[in-house]
Amino acid sequence: MSNIITPTFKDIINSYERIKRYSHNTPVLTSKSINNILNTNIYFKCENFQKVGAFKFRGAINSILSLSKDELQKGVATHSSGNHAAALALSAKIANTKAYIVMPKNAPDIKKKAVKSYGAIITYCEPALEARETTLNKIVKKTGATFIHPYNNFNVISGQGTAAYELINKIPDTDIVIVPVGGGGLLSGTAIAAKGLNKNIKVFGAEPKNADDAYQSFIHKKLIPSDNPITIADGLLTSLGTMTFEIICKNVDNIFTVKEDTIIKAMKLIWERMKIIIEPSSAVPLAAIIENNVLFKNKKIGIILSGGNVDLSDLHYFNNL
Amino acid sequence: MSNIITPTFKDIINSYERIKRYSHNTPVLTSKSINNILNTNIYFKCENFQKVGAFKFRGAINSILSLSKDELQKGVATHSSGNHAAALALSAKIANTKAYIVMPKNAPDIKKKAVKSYGAIITYCEPALEARETTLNKIVKKTGATFIHPYNNFNVISGQGTAAYELINKIPDTDIVIVPVGGGGLLSGTAIAAKGLNKNIKVFGAEPKNADDAYQSFIHKKLIPSDNPITIADGLLTSLGTMTFEIICKNVDNIFTVKEDTIIKAMKLIWERMKIIIEPSSAVPLAAIIENNVLFKNKKIGIILSGGNVDLSDLHYFNNL
Repeated sequence: MSNIITPTFKDIINSYERIKRYSHNTPVLTSKSINNILNTNIYFKCENFQKVGAFKFRGAINSILSLSKDELQKGVATHSSGNHAAALALSAKIANTKAYIVMPKNAPDIKKKAVKSYGAIITYCEPALEARETTLNKIVKKTGATFIHPYNNFNVISGQGTAAYELINKIPDTDIVIVPVGGGGLLSGTAIAAKGLNKNIKVFGAEPKNADDAYQSFIHKKLIPSDNPITIADGLLTSLGTMTFEIICKNVDNIFTVKEDTIIKAMKLIWERMKIIIEPSSAVPLAAIIENNVLFKNKKIGIILSGGNVDLSDLHYFNNL
Repeated sequence: MSNIITPTFKDIINSYERIKRYSHNTPVLTSKSINNILNTNIYFKCENFQKVGAFKFRGAINSILSLSKDELQKGVATHSSGNHAAALALSAKIANTKAYIVMPKNAPDIKKKAVKSYGAIITYCEPALEARETTLNKIVKKTGATFIHPYNNFNVISGQGTAAYELINKIPDTDIVIVPVGGGGLLSGTAIAAKGLNKNIKVFGAEPKNADDAYQSFIHKKLIPSDNPITIADGLLTSLGTMTFEIICKNVDNIFTVKEDTIIKAMKLIWERMKIIIEPSSAVPLAAIIENNVLFKNKKIGIILSGGNVDLSDLHYFNNL
């Protein structure tokens, strides 16, 4: 298909060995009441309990630990307003190097605060992608820092694959793994890990209908980016990259798109029945199971709950703090 | 002191053996960031993940499984608007008998719905305690059902003690166990379990300053009920009973009272750092550690997170559902 070198199953195993000292082997939870409602056996891999509250830590720490000594000294850089920024900042702190993070001026305060708390060097820019890239390029040129792309990156994808690797090693008779897809780093790593462990496991992506670039790209076999999508699943706004597109086309069995209403219902189901906090993006796979219930009946299904970073300030308990 | 027969450590062990087929041995979670902030080693026993979302299931199922065949056939009854009602309703369903629940008319819809969903027979009454007791007495007289008091009951206390029993068996070098105190069922059972396993473990209660009857009763060595207390910790409004008072005086090392602000801060800390949902009452022990930090430094502390039943409807994600 192309000249892009993509990770193999061996790269996932190597990444797992590389990062396991630093990342949490997060718990796998089940919910009898959700299983009763949906007639399924779902295993939730709780990456909301991962460091920085999201699976993104795996890819970020894996990338940093893969740098040469010389590269490491010059630091890392990225542009992001989300979990990847926090993950890269914490990973840089752990590896005792610098993280240069380019953030749009209008990023939520809560995200700015998180990145700052890990000691990153933040540069604010205009919100448009072009401004973010220009600002980042200047920083990379000046500092020699290595740009760590949030998903279209060999070591990031390999790192993200370690979550499914842990999950399936724990539940070896998994029939299906289903994960949310935004830029595709998690889905790519998951597919390589799952098929490497057992080629009979079905690997599905799930994304909001309102940001269905992965679905469109997957069925038309060419990259079709979303144009300013709007969805409650704010971690899934980005479109596939060249590397993740190639891996997904080769290794993923299907991509489901879901309605906004179902995402919210799935999220509430997890909060209420499991008493855990997940962000909307994490609820997208369960939403796909709700909307396509018949396909999942009596199956053993692994879901990666991608993260738990939500703004709680409007909950009545907290809105006077 | 009195003629009241109180449970022994042996009763806790027997209860554990009796209920373990039905209750979850809930996970024990830790939080590096909370430990870093407070300079402690805290082990959180997650009874928010227990059936009906609260430790109350333990006492309720233990009481029902302790009934004679004849008693069981006639069913059980209680007056409660909280977690005990749901716990008794589910326990009765499991044991294939009837639960008669007297609830104040003005109980929150979410609680009425939960109790109804377990198939209980609900009788609504005026909110005052007198009306609740009169209504309950009529039902007991008519049906022959056994009244299961929410906390001032031998088998309820023994059942609640199984949470600390599991926790300390998992973390045998625990220095301190600290749990919220309302009616005192959890604190009583915890004290018997902890002292039975290791008499050097300190057992503390924690309650809101705004509902400090346990503290007042504990230091004055006589029952001093609260008069219509108001606190965000809505599970801790009730006052000690004769049996729990006696056990607490004999077995508990201290009771801490905490401010409302600290309860909310502690609750937010757990939601944000641990990504789990707890109700305000569950946050009271952590609030006591925050307010008295120096006493807890470098200690291994077990906390029982008593429950996770909160109304999420005003969170922006859910308020249009």
